[in-house]
Amino acid sequence: MLKLHGFAVSNYYNMVKLALLEKGVPFEEVLFFGGPGPASLKISPCGKVPVLETEHGFLSETNLILDYIEQTQPGKALLPEGVFAQAKVRELAKEIELYIELPARACYPEAFFGAQVDPAIKQKAKAELLAGLAALKRNGAFAPYVAGEQMTLADILFCYSVDLAYAVGKKVFDMDVLADFPQAKALLEHFKQNPNVQRNAADKEAQMPAFLEMVRTGKR
Amino acid sequence: MLKLHGFAVSNYYNMVKLALLEKGVPFEEVLFFGGPGPASLKISPCGKVPVLETEHGFLSETNLILDYIEQTQPGKALLPEGVFAQAKVRELAKEIELYIELPARACYPEAFFGAQVDPAIKQKAKAELLAGLAALKRNGAFAPYVAGEQMTLADILFCYSVDLAYAVGKKVFDMDVLADFPQAKALLEHFKQNPNVQRNAADKEAQMPAFLEMVRTGKR
Repeated sequence: MLKLHGFAVSNYYNMVKLALLEKGVPFEEVLFFGGPGPASLKISPCGKVPVLETEHGFLSETNLILDYIEQTQPGKALLPEGVFAQAKVRELAKEIELYIELPARACYPEAFFGAQVDPAIKQKAKAELLAGLAALKRNGAFAPYVAGEQMTLADILFCYSVDLAYAVGKKVFDMDVLADFPQAKALLEHFKQNPNVQRNAADKEAQMPAFLEMVRTGKR
Repeated sequence: MLKLHGFAVSNYYNMVKLALLEKGVPFEEVLFFGGPGPASLKISPCGKVPVLETEHGFLSETNLILDYIEQTQPGKALLPEGVFAQAKVRELAKEIELYIELPARACYPEAFFGAQVDPAIKQKAKAELLAGLAALKRNGAFAPYVAGEQMTLADILFCYSVDLAYAVGKKVFDMDVLADFPQAKALLEHFKQNPNVQRNAADKEAQMPAFLEMVRTGKR
């Protein structure tokens, strides 16, 4: 059986978990906080969460894990048919990862963990984040899903990136970064009704105290 | 015939061009500087270079273009056989993209274009870049290629990311970031002897004056 290594507070962990749950693929969860220690680097080349343990070995990087699951596991398809159509969905997913999640991530220490982020880094992150959201607004279909009528891997990225980008906007920039992007707000609301998203949210909430303690003490 | 839109100074453009040349796939080059204007956004969702024009439409994001070419075009394989083995090569490629090219990129304005980068941004970039190079040293095979005996997509990323990361180290941090990574230096030297890499380098040199003029005036 596939094993998913990571922790329920990680948004990337929840992306893979949501894909597995949506497809109905059985999997086992293994608590893993990543980091630079040798035990962590043994299963994750850069000490990152999540890691998928397969019959062939360990695989890191969420988009590659999602693709691997899509290519090897049965269940609901999260990509359309056809090489080009699949590439266009991955293009949307990657744009969310690089141009929304990554700049928002630069502000997570201030938004969620009581730390300060340097103003120059925040300014760069804000410009990149707003550009990324504008691009998603231009390029997404939101009918109602990011790439059209079918839920795809782009929605998996959306669900656990745009929510945090919205929180970063409120907490760090004191602005509603989705103010002129009602389609995105509607899709976030849509996913809040999804039982698998609700399960992820409950698991995250349950784990939050232990996670914050880990952040506070630095003990993984 | 495939059309590759972009410009010869762009390292991501040269990644795709090298893959096409290595595979022997015929293609046409179309000069395109990207950017936020409507003509640019019509072919590239985020105004980024490069763009591959296919019979089905336009595709952005270098790794997706490389995958699309690999999946649809004949010629020398740049991925091994097997879903998991391919995922592991893409994992190396993505680690080079995210943890080496991206932090180095934050310093390109200072390294190459006479601008100043904020010290906080440089400090963050330096820490990330050194961690990314340490990870590549741990995880790459360098036998002699990044993933083993076969040239793969990971080498395509390597060839046009680690060279610039090295230049950023010298110019911005006044250090040899490959000092304890002779395998990487040897592979960069190896690629300098590759006729297709030499062609890309000559095309880049020829285009540099026009590119710098474009940067100076802001006219694309």
